[in-house]
Amino acid sequence: MPDTISFARGAPSLDIVDIEGLKAAAAAAFDADPGGTTGYGTSVGYLPLRTWIAAQHGVAPEHVLVTNGSMQADAFLFDHLVSDGDPVVVEKPTYDRTLLGLKGRGADIHMVELEGDGIDTAALRSLCESGTVPKLAHIIPNFQNPAGYTLSLEKRRELLVLAEEFGFLIFEDDPYIAIRFAGEELPTMLELDEGKGNVVYASSFSKTVCPGARVGYLVGAPDLIKAIQGIATNTYIAPNMFAQSIVYRFCVDGGLDRSIATVKAALAERVQLLTAALDRELAEATYQAPEGGYFMWVTLPEGTDVAALFTAAAERGVAFVKGTDFLLEGGENSLRLAYSGVTADQIDEGVSRLADAYRSLSPVTA
Amino acid sequence: MPDTISFARGAPSLDIVDIEGLKAAAAAAFDADPGGTTGYGTSVGYLPLRTWIAAQHGVAPEHVLVTNGSMQADAFLFDHLVSDGDPVVVEKPTYDRTLLGLKGRGADIHMVELEGDGIDTAALRSLCESGTVPKLAHIIPNFQNPAGYTLSLEKRRELLVLAEEFGFLIFEDDPYIAIRFAGEELPTMLELDEGKGNVVYASSFSKTVCPGARVGYLVGAPDLIKAIQGIATNTYIAPNMFAQSIVYRFCVDGGLDRSIATVKAALAERVQLLTAALDRELAEATYQAPEGGYFMWVTLPEGTDVAALFTAAAERGVAFVKGTDFLLEGGENSLRLAYSGVTADQIDEGVSRLADAYRSLSPVTA
Repeated sequence: MPDTISFARGAPSLDIVDIEGLKAAAAAAFDADPGGTTGYGTSVGYLPLRTWIAAQHGVAPEHVLVTNGSMQADAFLFDHLVSDGDPVVVEKPTYDRTLLGLKGRGADIHMVELEGDGIDTAALRSLCESGTVPKLAHIIPNFQNPAGYTLSLEKRRELLVLAEEFGFLIFEDDPYIAIRFAGEELPTMLELDEGKGNVVYASSFSKTVCPGARVGYLVGAPDLIKAIQGIATNTYIAPNMFAQSIVYRFCVDGGLDRSIATVKAALAERVQLLTAALDRELAEATYQAPEGGYFMWVTLPEGTDVAALFTAAAERGVAFVKGTDFLLEGGENSLRLAYSGVTADQIDEGVSRLADAYRSLSPVTA
Repeated sequence: MPDTISFARGAPSLDIVDIEGLKAAAAAAFDADPGGTTGYGTSVGYLPLRTWIAAQHGVAPEHVLVTNGSMQADAFLFDHLVSDGDPVVVEKPTYDRTLLGLKGRGADIHMVELEGDGIDTAALRSLCESGTVPKLAHIIPNFQNPAGYTLSLEKRRELLVLAEEFGFLIFEDDPYIAIRFAGEELPTMLELDEGKGNVVYASSFSKTVCPGARVGYLVGAPDLIKAIQGIATNTYIAPNMFAQSIVYRFCVDGGLDRSIATVKAALAERVQLLTAALDRELAEATYQAPEGGYFMWVTLPEGTDVAALFTAAAERGVAFVKGTDFLLEGGENSLRLAYSGVTADQIDEGVSRLADAYRSLSPVTA
């Protein structure tokens, strides 16, 4: 079997990670702030990075908590807010680890349809009006994982109206915002909320610097951040100072902007190649080309058995994640293709193998 | 007021952290393994470091989980093993954060007296025989925090007999083992248990490399490690790869051994200066000089009000942690002095201020 080409994992290929820049940032971190880089630090994160992030979002530092990756931030937030039986809203489909985290805490999960321009806000209103008001609504506004769709400005405003009207918290989970390579930038719900406290925002440096840094963060109302800080202290004293100090240097020394430019250019090219290959080799596939991020959602004809396709694809050396993994039910004719981890020269071959796998399925399942 | 001299925090002074060595290790990490250093990694930790740690402990890698500091390892272990109402045994006194972590999970905490040669094993046997068998017994065997005492070989063997006889797990919390500067090295209970699964062991690089690395680990039975790995995956995908790769390079390139030699020499000198200063300035104080680690427990005459001493000391620019912080009750005439964070030249002045604070107390409280 040939080497597997993986459209499965939401991680960057090594060629778009700035190794030399990170090496220089590491040297600068130990030189410029040896005490801060090697000491315990505090549970809010490396203070210069916290301040830098706060400035990016136009808030005071006490609105920010920097964590060991944004999934750790999610875990703290869920630990603080979600108890057994609490209703929560997520998008349908949504990130599989979010589903797992919420299930693990016994949440009463309501999946609300994700449309090409974001969550179906009318359906969310109906849910609230029927008496099920979520404690929080988890929304991935930009280049959603797994769908790649982006929430429109109109729907951002509608969500804020709903949050205010029914009194739930919007959890704006936004790790991909910086890697938009097409279309127009939209304001975050955090910004649009203007400090009313209806939004808690999470993002990460995994997609702009690299995942191994494991640096993510929350932005929210100071009392919420303070409460989560208490959980962080009791969990690990402080997050990783080596990594946060290196990321800080990378940001202030210009590495971040250079890295974002590299990543955007590469991802734009990959989406172009991926969609062209699909159109050519697998015309049965429908999709909406993303304007940024890592993922594209692909729908195959009704009746396709994605589990069988997964197996046939694996036999031919190509991997993806089944649509069913992102849903509580359904998704049998859909899949997520991540183009972040494949280099341009792998895409044609990968899609060719995928198409071959699809054609190998019996007409009953394909 | 003069600058505060702090005997409070269990952290190294910057002069005993090998900044240049860490900078070199960081460069080596990005050069030698760019993919492993910058990628997501896996929840068991950076694989070369995991393998290196396993070899140090003479076990296979599947016995090891590397975490974001050993307190995170404790948190995972407690999440897995300790439920509301479960009896657990800790030493009296013990590390305040362990107490907090256990209280937070609703454990039924039984503190068993810590003697100069370790926990009172006869008292622990009585407790078990009376029907209270702990789910786990948390033991800091070497240079205990806060007391600085070390568990004797005889008591290590006794604890293993008790664990086997009554069926509880020993949680051997051993961050200080490598920084013994006097006396003879003792085998860990993990070693003495010979793979019977009665011990789960935790340690850290915070005291040998530096705390900002936030790299700790667990060693235990593969099924226990596997279960905790599941919690780790759902919490943060993977721990910090930057830091673990840097620590790994520091270990294999000789930095760790050099650093341990530096730390030991400095701490030995500090204990010598600290005990000499106490003998000279505060003869009322009794203590047992530690053979390693960061801490020394100091007892003042019965009736001393350590809270009043704390305030008087703060007014004079010297800090420590009150004995009461390490106990559920008692400790009013005791304190913990950490000598890890004070440089040799600060010790005489610090003890002088402490003695002055003590003499300032009214005879009723001092």
